[in-house]
Amino acid sequence: MIVETKKRSLVKAFSWRILATLTTILIVYLVFHNLKLASIAGGFEFIAKIIVYFIHERVWNKIRFGKEEIEPFVIWITGLPLSGKTTIGDEVAERLKKVGFRVERLDGRDIRKLFPKTGFSQEDRIVHNERVAHLASILERNGICVVASFVSPYEEMRSFARGLCKNFVEVYLKCDVETCEKRDREGLYERARRGEIKNFTGISDPYEEPVDPEIMVDVRKMNIGEATDKIVGYVKRRFLR
Amino acid sequence: MIVETKKRSLVKAFSWRILATLTTILIVYLVFHNLKLASIAGGFEFIAKIIVYFIHERVWNKIRFGKEEIEPFVIWITGLPLSGKTTIGDEVAERLKKVGFRVERLDGRDIRKLFPKTGFSQEDRIVHNERVAHLASILERNGICVVASFVSPYEEMRSFARGLCKNFVEVYLKCDVETCEKRDREGLYERARRGEIKNFTGISDPYEEPVDPEIMVDVRKMNIGEATDKIVGYVKRRFLR
Repeated sequence: MIVETKKRSLVKAFSWRILATLTTILIVYLVFHNLKLASIAGGFEFIAKIIVYFIHERVWNKIRFGKEEIEPFVIWITGLPLSGKTTIGDEVAERLKKVGFRVERLDGRDIRKLFPKTGFSQEDRIVHNERVAHLASILERNGICVVASFVSPYEEMRSFARGLCKNFVEVYLKCDVETCEKRDREGLYERARRGEIKNFTGISDPYEEPVDPEIMVDVRKMNIGEATDKIVGYVKRRFLR
Repeated sequence: MIVETKKRSLVKAFSWRILATLTTILIVYLVFHNLKLASIAGGFEFIAKIIVYFIHERVWNKIRFGKEEIEPFVIWITGLPLSGKTTIGDEVAERLKKVGFRVERLDGRDIRKLFPKTGFSQEDRIVHNERVAHLASILERNGICVVASFVSPYEEMRSFARGLCKNFVEVYLKCDVETCEKRDREGLYERARRGEIKNFTGISDPYEEPVDPEIMVDVRKMNIGEATDKIVGYVKRRFLR
């Protein structure tokens, strides 16, 4: 996202006024050879200054001074299956787009077409996580904010992603297995308990809780709106200044 | 890349002048109750208009009207091994960055860390190509120009990439096997002829010539600089208007 700083506008205001006043004085002097008759020049001024202003704007359009880019960032949402990562990620992405950020959503749901042959074994998960982290960092380095939502159960995975990205915001959706299981209309937890799904995080594969995430959301105590507010609020405070 | 249109500057010039003239008239009237004494108001005007101009700029800073984004595009360079894709791709990317575009380079050289487990069989190549095409389209959709250089020997691969991207620019580096082989210091062609490298495009795997590429560069007749000029020239004409 590109914004203009107040400093830029202030410097433009000074440069414009000096230019405009000199123009008025010059026109009056050329027409009447009398500086006191400046008021008569109002008509000339109106037309002339519009041209001068326009040129002035076009010149400034080439000058980068005071044009700043808000730093892009990667919001990495981690948590147990069914803890609400996708829903909250979608909400956060929508809100950030409204603020003016360029946002790309990365979610298990739609990322598999990029990486079609990935399974769910521990090794496959780590490789998959690395690819997503690389993708996120490519996007971030090109000025795009990323909202990534992945179980990413191992500390190693999240550290890897953190290491690649410049502004990494780890969001931990804290929730216990029981609460997640209650929300599970597709019966994934049940199938995992019966052994039909292997390496299921929380049941047959460990979830290592984040040690020091930037944001912690206890989804048992906060609804989607509150969680979104907390995340978007943090991002605005840290990156919009 | 974000630029401001001339229309935007013109409308700003009008809105500013109306505001500034009304300010002058108001100040003179409030101070002297005489519109003819406008010249005396010069000093007041100088200070007051800087403030008004500044506010005016800040308000315009919120208005999107006339702010345009140059459409991003995907330059897809195809050709035999050793035809010069990587070198020309790097040159083109550097030149486009200088013009002001945001550019990401995608090349076999550095893309394999994203997709680590890909081999060189026909099937693997097609899957790899699909991933690269998806990645290019994600970047393009987020306003980033892509310079991709891949052998991409089958028409099907290039059509797939074309279908995903909005502004697809196919660049065919035309060269015969003999010429490419002469440049081959690493002896890849030789090893392919001995059967040590399998499915080597041009030797043991076909290269389907592009039927109707946006740009054709005959690398036997053009040097790197000329090829770069041709590609950058096309892009400027088509996308910068």
